Amino acid sequence: MLSEFNVIERFFARPTSIKKASTVLGIGDDCALLSIPEGYELALTTDTMVEGVHFFAETNPEHLGHKLLAVNLSDLASIGAKPMSVLLALTLPRVNEEWLEAFAKGFFSLADEFSVDLIGGDTTSGSLTLTVQALGLVARGKSLLRSNARVGDFIYVSGSLGNAGLGLLFLQGKTALQSSVAMTQFNTPHPRVDLGLKISIFAHACIDISDGLVGDLGHILKQSQVGACIDWLALPLSDDVRAYIQQTGDWLMPLTAGDDYELCFTVPPELVALVPQYCHKIGVIEERKGLRINRFGLISDLVGKAYEHFS
Amino acid sequence: MLSEFNVIERFFARPTSIKKASTVLGIGDDCALLSIPEGYELALTTDTMVEGVHFFAETNPEHLGHKLLAVNLSDLASIGAKPMSVLLALTLPRVNEEWLEAFAKGFFSLADEFSVDLIGGDTTSGSLTLTVQALGLVARGKSLLRSNARVGDFIYVSGSLGNAGLGLLFLQGKTALQSSVAMTQFNTPHPRVDLGLKISIFAHACIDISDGLVGDLGHILKQSQVGACIDWLALPLSDDVRAYIQQTGDWLMPLTAGDDYELCFTVPPELVALVPQYCHKIGVIEERKGLRINRFGLISDLVGKAYEHFS
Repeated sequence: MLSEFNVIERFFARPTSIKKASTVLGIGDDCALLSIPEGYELALTTDTMVEGVHFFAETNPEHLGHKLLAVNLSDLASIGAKPMSVLLALTLPRVNEEWLEAFAKGFFSLADEFSVDLIGGDTTSGSLTLTVQALGLVARGKSLLRSNARVGDFIYVSGSLGNAGLGLLFLQGKTALQSSVAMTQFNTPHPRVDLGLKISIFAHACIDISDGLVGDLGHILKQSQVGACIDWLALPLSDDVRAYIQQTGDWLMPLTAGDDYELCFTVPPELVALVPQYCHKIGVIEERKGLRINRFGLISDLVGKAYEHFS
Repeated sequence: MLSEFNVIERFFARPTSIKKASTVLGIGDDCALLSIPEGYELALTTDTMVEGVHFFAETNPEHLGHKLLAVNLSDLASIGAKPMSVLLALTLPRVNEEWLEAFAKGFFSLADEFSVDLIGGDTTSGSLTLTVQALGLVARGKSLLRSNARVGDFIYVSGSLGNAGLGLLFLQGKTALQSSVAMTQFNTPHPRVDLGLKISIFAHACIDISDGLVGDLGHILKQSQVGACIDWLALPLSDDVRAYIQQTGDWLMPLTAGDDYELCFTVPPELVALVPQYCHKIGVIEERKGLRINRFGLISDLVGKAYEHFS
């Protein structure tokens, strides 16, 4: 234990009455102890957020607590796991009680929604760097992998694309278009945990959209050794994202912007009736490698386009 | 996944042939998947090391990779867990291949010794901040807690005290006493995993000495609601630490300096024959609260003394 401050115990230890049965030992010893039920595999992920890289210095700490947990739960969702417990490693420039209380409020409000126990952590001194390690449960052999897409699968995304990207562009001063939908998606994304559990029964491959659809769907294609074509007209876009594209012509934004934390998954045609209504069919898995887009009848290589967009 | 760099896959993914059977899915998806054997509880810990706080900027990256893993395995050791898997969250100012290769070499050399699989991680951009989350297994109900010391238990420490502290004083330019034993303990501490497993059968309470004996034994006393008296003449000290004390009179150093990563544990008198020879009896658990030291027949309050030493 390297903690300079006793922040985890002071701000993040909660009444034992609300602990989960799986938590044998929580905050306060050298390790936490968990009991793992039989018939399940343990899903693990870790994500770090760094001030000035993943969030602005003036970010509302309540939003930050929410988002740090959300991005980790989103990884659990994308593999079809039920969230169970988290560890929290905070590197802080100083102990600011007001900031920590607001951060904890945002963190626990989402944790409580998904019955996630904070079972331990570490607090060190340094530039603001926030790491969560999240643990979830998947029925043995039932996880949703990136590598399982098959030719002929339809490709779905939940919610809509580009809202968080629009929020970021506004905060960066790159657009004047103010959108509450966009700001909410950027500041407090809601991890698609329930969707991940639901589709784990019938979907083939799944990933969460953290780096943008092109990049993340690209991981599915690469690891499944397949290609895909998506349909521009089928992409679910909010009115505000449509307005942004109309103003700027920047139609690649919703395809390349990250931080939406929606799920992108593939489903065999005979099972599409099982897909919830708030998910949208955007394309199909093909044998030919690469990621293409059909935009008004013109099919073009999307990875090349996205690359030009970044450079 | 928030990674700016694909460092985990590039530098830390290893041949699947050396993966453990418990690793169902390693590096490369949104989550890792582990299979937990029946009859065991999962022990979890996380520790962060920050440049300029926990290590000097010029630290040999091979030592750093070793030490980051060692401090986490030491937490597993102190609860009597067998190490299984780790996640690695690296925040790096830039991708320095030479640095990363040396870091990975130190990390894996220790990981291989204890058959620990690196199953995933995250790499972000920012000030150098290194976090490991370590997972281990304990037979159900057999963990060594801080809260289990009982009046009459004898107190033991493994190895010797103050070597890492002496190494740090040298690096800080506060002593001219150069000691290879001290530098090795400071740079590449060896976690007492085997000892933790061995004593888990008969010891009552245990902690690893990361913040110094006074502070860490203090956690055992507080959480077990007992006190203790330790015997100055019984403390295991290396020749170099003895020489340092003779030169400076600073006899509190081995009691308050951190980073030794030895285990401090309590054993009921009837079971002391089971304690390995490289552990040393240094005192006894008493009903009277507080931590006292018997130094040449004079018994004094050690917590007060340590406090003066720090201020």
